[in-house]
Amino acid sequence: MRGFFDARSVAVVGVSDDPANMARSIVTNLQEFCFDGIIYQVGQRGGHAFGRRIFKSVADLPDQVDLAVILVPARHVPGVLEECGQKGIRRAIVETAGFSEFGPEGKAIEDQVVAAARKHGIRFLGPNGIGVLNLKNGLVVPFPRLKDVFARGRVSILSQSGGVGLSYLNVLASENLGLAKFASLGNKLDVNECDLLEVLVDDPDTDIIVLYLEGISDGRRLMDLARRTAKPILMHKSNTGQLAREIAASHTASLSGDDAVVSAALAQVGVARFGDATTLVNYLKMLPLPRLEGDRLAIVSRSGGHAVIAADACEAAGFRLARFPEAFLREIERHFRASVIKLTNPLDLGDLFDFDVYLRIVEETLRLEDVDGVVFLHTYIAALEGERSRELFRRIEELGFKHGKPVAICVATDFEEMAILRRTLPHPVYTEPDDAIHSLRLVRDFRHHARPAPVLPEGRLDQERVRAVLARCRAEGRDPGLGEALEVLRAAGLAVAPSSGVASAEEAVSAAAALGGPVALKLDVAEASHKTDVGGVRLGCQGADAVREAFGALAAAAGRLGARGPVRVEVQRMAEGGREIILGARRDPSFGPVVLVGLGGVFVEVLRDVVMRVVPFEATEADEMIRALQAFPVLQGLRGQAPRDLAALREGLLCVARLVEAFPEIAELDVNPLMLFAEGQGALAVDARILLARAVAPA
Amino acid sequence: MRGFFDARSVAVVGVSDDPANMARSIVTNLQEFCFDGIIYQVGQRGGHAFGRRIFKSVADLPDQVDLAVILVPARHVPGVLEECGQKGIRRAIVETAGFSEFGPEGKAIEDQVVAAARKHGIRFLGPNGIGVLNLKNGLVVPFPRLKDVFARGRVSILSQSGGVGLSYLNVLASENLGLAKFASLGNKLDVNECDLLEVLVDDPDTDIIVLYLEGISDGRRLMDLARRTAKPILMHKSNTGQLAREIAASHTASLSGDDAVVSAALAQVGVARFGDATTLVNYLKMLPLPRLEGDRLAIVSRSGGHAVIAADACEAAGFRLARFPEAFLREIERHFRASVIKLTNPLDLGDLFDFDVYLRIVEETLRLEDVDGVVFLHTYIAALEGERSRELFRRIEELGFKHGKPVAICVATDFEEMAILRRTLPHPVYTEPDDAIHSLRLVRDFRHHARPAPVLPEGRLDQERVRAVLARCRAEGRDPGLGEALEVLRAAGLAVAPSSGVASAEEAVSAAAALGGPVALKLDVAEASHKTDVGGVRLGCQGADAVREAFGALAAAAGRLGARGPVRVEVQRMAEGGREIILGARRDPSFGPVVLVGLGGVFVEVLRDVVMRVVPFEATEADEMIRALQAFPVLQGLRGQAPRDLAALREGLLCVARLVEAFPEIAELDVNPLMLFAEGQGALAVDARILLARAVAPA
Repeated sequence: MRGFFDARSVAVVGVSDDPANMARSIVTNLQEFCFDGIIYQVGQRGGHAFGRRIFKSVADLPDQVDLAVILVPARHVPGVLEECGQKGIRRAIVETAGFSEFGPEGKAIEDQVVAAARKHGIRFLGPNGIGVLNLKNGLVVPFPRLKDVFARGRVSILSQSGGVGLSYLNVLASENLGLAKFASLGNKLDVNECDLLEVLVDDPDTDIIVLYLEGISDGRRLMDLARRTAKPILMHKSNTGQLAREIAASHTASLSGDDAVVSAALAQVGVARFGDATTLVNYLKMLPLPRLEGDRLAIVSRSGGHAVIAADACEAAGFRLARFPEAFLREIERHFRASVIKLTNPLDLGDLFDFDVYLRIVEETLRLEDVDGVVFLHTYIAALEGERSRELFRRIEELGFKHGKPVAICVATDFEEMAILRRTLPHPVYTEPDDAIHSLRLVRDFRHHARPAPVLPEGRLDQERVRAVLARCRAEGRDPGLGEALEVLRAAGLAVAPSSGVASAEEAVSAAAALGGPVALKLDVAEASHKTDVGGVRLGCQGADAVREAFGALAAAAGRLGARGPVRVEVQRMAEGGREIILGARRDPSFGPVVLVGLGGVFVEVLRDVVMRVVPFEATEADEMIRALQAFPVLQGLRGQAPRDLAALREGLLCVARLVEAFPEIAELDVNPLMLFAEGQGALAVDARILLARAVAPA
Repeated sequence: MRGFFDARSVAVVGVSDDPANMARSIVTNLQEFCFDGIIYQVGQRGGHAFGRRIFKSVADLPDQVDLAVILVPARHVPGVLEECGQKGIRRAIVETAGFSEFGPEGKAIEDQVVAAARKHGIRFLGPNGIGVLNLKNGLVVPFPRLKDVFARGRVSILSQSGGVGLSYLNVLASENLGLAKFASLGNKLDVNECDLLEVLVDDPDTDIIVLYLEGISDGRRLMDLARRTAKPILMHKSNTGQLAREIAASHTASLSGDDAVVSAALAQVGVARFGDATTLVNYLKMLPLPRLEGDRLAIVSRSGGHAVIAADACEAAGFRLARFPEAFLREIERHFRASVIKLTNPLDLGDLFDFDVYLRIVEETLRLEDVDGVVFLHTYIAALEGERSRELFRRIEELGFKHGKPVAICVATDFEEMAILRRTLPHPVYTEPDDAIHSLRLVRDFRHHARPAPVLPEGRLDQERVRAVLARCRAEGRDPGLGEALEVLRAAGLAVAPSSGVASAEEAVSAAAALGGPVALKLDVAEASHKTDVGGVRLGCQGADAVREAFGALAAAAGRLGARGPVRVEVQRMAEGGREIILGARRDPSFGPVVLVGLGGVFVEVLRDVVMRVVPFEATEADEMIRALQAFPVLQGLRGQAPRDLAALREGLLCVARLVEAFPEIAELDVNPLMLFAEGQGALAVDARILLARAVAPA
């Protein structure tokens, strides 16, 4: 895969002597960036361009070539790849658009492209991308013209979209952020983001990795790669909604999973998710600064008003303002020309105009043990104080490094001055106090480190018994019924309310007697998948008559539904007094099994308050899921209510996780509700639903 | 008040021949902005500056002067004002800092300042502000040096903080947004934001009003002024948190109310609240564009990736993507050089490079009846396509005006180019699709128009009876007890669960028998303000024995609390089966009476889901409050539950509002809970608490 970045000879295929020819710009870019290798031009009409010959076909090339960059009409791409294969070229970048993103004809050509590549063992990037940039060797092959305005640095970018990739390149250049490598993934017909992410993870020239993706090809591999590396990974995953999904499907042929799964998965492996270029820059500029090790900030401001705004932002972001010691304040006071500003944190420099004094104050502030970081707010008119301010900022940042604490600088000035600051200062400069403080929070909360793959803690899972139930259902081409679903849960070690399946009123009466106490009767036929809505549930039946009557009512309901086969009913001992919890699991096409938890009733139905994780996860992570619920205080016990049995809930989550990890044929599983009792009293599943994948090979 | 902007002669007090003298910059600014009037300089040491004499005192001035601008040490300000008064000057701007924002000594000087001003009928702005700008007559008196880089226009700004005001001025200049007037309010010791807002509301040169405030001096007058005008008012109200409040108190001596009240009040009168300069600019640049009349957008993009991001943002902001008619798509297709992009909305211009074709496409899009607005996304490298792109943007905006629909332009380019675009284009240009679409939403949702003052619909409020209860409590120096609070609610027309107060077990038994059915007994002594927590509530007591036993238990609880006086207990008929609602009211120091509604239990306690309005409001607004609750779906009936009686809830809100409007001595009122029954079955208040203001004159 490194070959996409390290090629020492490149054939640009699709060049003609027409000045409007797009492949010519690829050659121009290679020249602009002083490619440290040999460039060949190929185009069926031959001729010459840029003082070089245009070979009529790849076959005509005089030498061996490392990489072909192809920009010919889509229908010609399979043929060009065939020629490349015959010539022994094993790496190609296809920049041509018009494949599956355009329609069924394009899809047919794609199949031919893949066939040609497979036949010759060619790995290719694209189609419908703009290729790569490697600033180290000048391998820069996008077809849009680029100027070499880039600082050399240690940030590398993978972008599914060429346009978004270009705009990120623009931003890096404008912000003086150093670039190492770039690749545009396009339709990801062969090489995907994981293939190149692996290159960047191992790349000695890359320290920070940025991804823009519209779809995630292999979520689990992505998670593994992210866990393997200590390099910060920042990801913009778009295509989050229904509208975008329709476009993206046509745009780069992405299949998008559920966005909440993406967020959960990225959080699990410590990938920072961002949604716009501003946030990206905030990360990139803050990450090289000294680490913010706590939440105590000092605000030093030239304007009291900005200090107020910054203090609001501090509080909203969960920071505290460090308390300044008296001795420090007296020391500061000595520097003031007149004592007209009350000394406190935020420190308002209002009537003080000597920048050297500002510096001394910032340094004194950084020295304070109670201060973890500083926000410096500065208002100026560039024409009057521009140069002095820029020098001030440089020296303030040096002080930050000297004392090992970050300083976020926020200025109010004109945009031309901001452009200069951004392009010339290596450190971040913000225009909004909110933004400066939000950035500090981003880097405070973002812990990037290599981490071992989690392992689900072991537990009782009777695989034989689960397999038997699922095999029977699969054989009969149906999903498990209620009784079967409850049996699977029991086999998975979950506590389930005692119940038994019956087929007649008299069986129901006996079952109820055996269970003891009041019982619930629940219709268990395929046609009643939403039992409650069709009158398929009777609660609190006590005594033979009540049970018999309830069975009759359920049988009648089954009749109304046109249920085929015998009427089956689950008789279950009532489990009352618990808080209703929903446990769920499903299989994401990209990330595999995912488990979720939420509180029943309004919390899920109105507030969509659920927390999700990709399986596997550790027991501590299950606890984190529970605590992350908005409704968590309800489980801790509101208004003197007893706290709920959180250990039982954790165990419930782990049981479900073990089950869906071991049985990929389970496409969806809901335990709804799990009744969660007071601390020490456990939990009981009282209803469940399992859907099987339509066509999954046996595990 | 217009005198602060229209003065034709100005005395700058505090000028010396020292080059570091700050008042000199005031004179410099007047000269820079070509003040169309006469400038006098006053300074106790005399001498000369800028080729003019410095008079030693105001008394020495040879002519009558309209306005004094004062920047002398705080302790000298009272004397200067005294001189001004004697000289007949009736308007002053005090820029000096170091008053109450600094400490008690400053507060003492403030009192002298106010006394001197009152004595002579002087109205003054400040202290601790930077004065005014009026670009029409060049009256520009801040002490920080300013360059005249401002476009003349129709936006006026009032800012409590000078620093934030300056940064907004910077932003306006950078964004080519035309300024009319500016004033900095400082400590608002005399003139406040309402005084100057009234000037701007009536100012023929002002079309849009921007306010930055840390505290609101007179919320009700502000609301009245906002209702009076059709001019859009945009407000940044900072000082929202606890941290900021502490600073602001020292910074500009503001007293800040509850931030949620501010938000509610501004929303009620159609003032747009913003929190940063970016959002301000978005408003200011979008407001002059044609109005967005619906929610159907078209996205036209040079990059598929940006189209995906924009579509995500569309959906998140509640917009729809217009469906393009087939005929339109065929028309567009004819313009394409190659058919490699699927035509849909968003329209991806991917392989099309002719800007004239872009224009034609945008125009065709604007013509479509189903399109209410357009988002145009453009990626370019300034060095290569800068000029052509700028021309494209200008012509696109013309098309928007021609067709009466807004076009939000979003570009990916470098910052220097962005600075040029912002300073030269009259129309907005965004760098993030999210931001462009968010701005469209801002102006879609922001309806600015003059509106009549709301009137609470009349209802039954027995003022005599309320007055009697409150008078008794006030006379005894205590808050109303439970029985009294319930009586007040009954007098206010609210349905209250039948109850009566008793003082013995036997009275309780008789009362329970009279009420019929199970009853609740609630301890009604001042010491048991949190009844439930101290065992002061017994629910569902049925029969004489149970009532007697409950009374005994409550009496014992009262004993444990050390209650003085006789034990009083409220015996109340049980009201079960309702959904618990909380109605509340309190008196905001700036906005007056405020009413709130929320659902009891987790909704208020965990989720803080409450909606608030300043009284008075119309019945339709009460309905809006209810519908604005996150938990509103619960009231509509979840999972087949009956919908609740929303008319009764509205009436409850109106009763509470009438009560607190009529009785300013009610500082706080909680109805917790109001039991809300199914539709048509009304509501019953079952518990209530009223706190009286400590020192309010009788209504």
